[in-house]
Amino acid sequence: MNEPTRFGTVTPEVVERLSAILGAGGVSVDGEKIAVYSRDEVAERFWDRPYRAEVLVFPESTRHVSEILRMANERRIPVTPRGAGTGLSGGAVPAFGGILVSFERMNRILELDTENLCMTVEPGVITAEITRAARKAGLLYAGDPCSGDASFIGGNVAENAGGNKVIKYGPTGSSVLALEVVLADGSVTWFGGKRRKDVTGYDFVHLMVGSEGTLGIITKIVLKLLPLPAFGVDLLIPFPTVEAAIRFVPRIALEGRVTPASIELVDHHSLSQAEKFLNTRLPFDQAAAHLIVQLEGNDREVVADETERVGKLALEKGALEVFVADNRSSRDKLWKARKSVAEAIMAYYQNYAKEDLVVPTDRVPDLLFAVDALCRKWRMEAANYGHVGDGNIHVNLLMADDRPHWHEDMEQARQELYETVRQLGGTLSGEHGIGLKRKAYLPQFLDAPQLELMRRVKLAFDPNGILNPGKLVFWDKKTGEAGA
Amino acid sequence: MNEPTRFGTVTPEVVERLSAILGAGGVSVDGEKIAVYSRDEVAERFWDRPYRAEVLVFPESTRHVSEILRMANERRIPVTPRGAGTGLSGGAVPAFGGILVSFERMNRILELDTENLCMTVEPGVITAEITRAARKAGLLYAGDPCSGDASFIGGNVAENAGGNKVIKYGPTGSSVLALEVVLADGSVTWFGGKRRKDVTGYDFVHLMVGSEGTLGIITKIVLKLLPLPAFGVDLLIPFPTVEAAIRFVPRIALEGRVTPASIELVDHHSLSQAEKFLNTRLPFDQAAAHLIVQLEGNDREVVADETERVGKLALEKGALEVFVADNRSSRDKLWKARKSVAEAIMAYYQNYAKEDLVVPTDRVPDLLFAVDALCRKWRMEAANYGHVGDGNIHVNLLMADDRPHWHEDMEQARQELYETVRQLGGTLSGEHGIGLKRKAYLPQFLDAPQLELMRRVKLAFDPNGILNPGKLVFWDKKTGEAGA
Repeated sequence: MNEPTRFGTVTPEVVERLSAILGAGGVSVDGEKIAVYSRDEVAERFWDRPYRAEVLVFPESTRHVSEILRMANERRIPVTPRGAGTGLSGGAVPAFGGILVSFERMNRILELDTENLCMTVEPGVITAEITRAARKAGLLYAGDPCSGDASFIGGNVAENAGGNKVIKYGPTGSSVLALEVVLADGSVTWFGGKRRKDVTGYDFVHLMVGSEGTLGIITKIVLKLLPLPAFGVDLLIPFPTVEAAIRFVPRIALEGRVTPASIELVDHHSLSQAEKFLNTRLPFDQAAAHLIVQLEGNDREVVADETERVGKLALEKGALEVFVADNRSSRDKLWKARKSVAEAIMAYYQNYAKEDLVVPTDRVPDLLFAVDALCRKWRMEAANYGHVGDGNIHVNLLMADDRPHWHEDMEQARQELYETVRQLGGTLSGEHGIGLKRKAYLPQFLDAPQLELMRRVKLAFDPNGILNPGKLVFWDKKTGEAGA
Repeated sequence: MNEPTRFGTVTPEVVERLSAILGAGGVSVDGEKIAVYSRDEVAERFWDRPYRAEVLVFPESTRHVSEILRMANERRIPVTPRGAGTGLSGGAVPAFGGILVSFERMNRILELDTENLCMTVEPGVITAEITRAARKAGLLYAGDPCSGDASFIGGNVAENAGGNKVIKYGPTGSSVLALEVVLADGSVTWFGGKRRKDVTGYDFVHLMVGSEGTLGIITKIVLKLLPLPAFGVDLLIPFPTVEAAIRFVPRIALEGRVTPASIELVDHHSLSQAEKFLNTRLPFDQAAAHLIVQLEGNDREVVADETERVGKLALEKGALEVFVADNRSSRDKLWKARKSVAEAIMAYYQNYAKEDLVVPTDRVPDLLFAVDALCRKWRMEAANYGHVGDGNIHVNLLMADDRPHWHEDMEQARQELYETVRQLGGTLSGEHGIGLKRKAYLPQFLDAPQLELMRRVKLAFDPNGILNPGKLVFWDKKTGEAGA
């Protein structure tokens, strides 16, 4: 059994080697810069200590990454890949120091293949650029994380980012056809291809997706594209209670016979934060909850028809009103509000637990009842929003800024919440990832055989444990590790 | 390093233990029965020798499977799981004898959950029963392999069966939300859940899908369901050349802005075999190729509109005619012909190579040109059909029954074909699996690091190598194994 905590350190000679591989401009040991790059969107105050890489590198090619890994593997130096730092779980935080690999210079769209409906990109391309490039060609890239204007596609793949269109198109992984991967020892391989189906060997494409950089480092991604729907409409539907909003959600498919691209929930508390943050107002903003339902299609009349059907059904099921946004500016305003909720809450609250729970869709009401009860018990507030169409709710537990022992209280409240989620058939994270933040809770959701399989699969891919150590996998149940 | 070829044998005491677990009625050592169950749809004349299990068992519960595996693992006895035997790659053929596990008694639909749009089934349920049960509830199970009237869902999952609706809904794996799995040591775990997204740990659900029973034995499956489209139409479109038919395929999405549920190709030779086999006739059966395009939707007018758009476009692009089947009996007749092609060819030819190639969709014409050239060079015929919409073509190379050395000739022709496929960015199998039949060819399509990763992952899940040994994984590159 290897012991991944006996890592090699980044000596001056290692920095020299890295400079020889990357050129002097591709390597940084500047403490301030390293500090900036060693973070993601999880505030440092939530960690037990600041985590810092020892050296920061900026590869420009697969060959660079390969040479970095070959050297790191020989010397047992940890390597943490990093996208744009928009992560919400500390997945790109270098838990054991070592080499931090920024992909900002591997940011090219390599090919837009309109015949095979796919795009080949480097991991440092910003998600929204992919969406735009596809749209220009009349095509849709279906990934749509809220952080898409800033996030890198490599991070989206590594965390299997979800976002706003999962109910119709699946998470990021559903759009991944192939990956070029540098393995721990520096060897380079391709999983998958420009192929819509493939049973030639184990499905390592989807094993890599969501593996948080612990199994290999992704250097190229082939993304599936779809014909761009010609028409789209967003419905903003306020409800008098959160429960009424949630109970309406399954009716859209079951009674309305419509599969929207998005069904998003924003409760009153979440909406207020977003309005304050953006200095804007949305209609009926005193309502307990709003749903945003996005419909799309190629036929204007069908979309209009579905809009009417969903709107009518909503009013039957207790909606206060139905607002239809069918032009660019009103649609953008709506989504800007929805997408800013996370940032707004973090701006106005210090003491929060930002959760990424997922339960079977019909248990969402039970989950939110339980959150209500928790709030009363622990004298705290909650802001709930997220992808209600797929059962993925971002529950935010909020405690007063001046509350003593808030951290201990929050931890206990969180434990009770997790126990409820488990009982509801739910799990720890739907799209934000485990990272450093949630690793300690994994054993509440995955049984011992499964944790052991994860450990063995990690060993199969990365015998020396150099790839993003401290994430996802427990090397040694007795000693534990950072984040465990 | 374990040596999986040093397997334990099925002694009378093992049979006794199995009878104690399953009851006497759950165990068979009847040689004739074992011979029948030790086959799939690959004719035995294609194997180097007949493969036979030593004992056949019929578990009725997860507990049964768990106890069988615990015992087998202790004694290093091979265990091969088996569905309905409709496989086309020898995936369920017991290459090393041992215990053959038939799932015909684990054939219950355990739950149809109309709120969460999913169904929980045992592996021995016939695929078509799932489709019917879903349809009764107004829901769609999107898996649609041609063998669906006979195949078991467990086999569909183990091989990641494709079928006729992959372009719209993906292969079987896209419908799998969760799996109950018995691991090699008999422990029982669940991968996934009734959740539309989940990043809590590695994606072992999709690692299991298509792993051909080599990593664990599936005992329950949670399948995703969708709202059933209210209207469907099939277009039968004859073309004067295969090339014209294929070149039309991408125009459907790109110019027609339509995403059909199916785009199937049947060439003249394939259609003739099916007509003879079914004693039926389809219109324009002298045409070089037919496409079957299935359209579906919830709005009768939209479907009618799309039908017209696709039909008109087809005629512009050289179709000889467009036949619209919009009632049950004409649609059934069409699909019966399509689904019988494989069986028909096997009925009329002895010396065939039945391939399951997949290439990037825009390379399908190149693939078929290469097949033409091969036919001329090797003096043979070809029948080509399949899922042209996703680049998965069942190329059938056919040699005269009385040809001497046909096997050697075929092998060489096949090698040349595979080399072409590789150069086109294609691969060995899109949906039939590797099994015993294609294992020897894996190294032409997967590089050494990948084969080594497969070996290590296999070891991680199954340290003693008892699970369907001889399939997918090379234990020892030097000695090779059965099928290798």
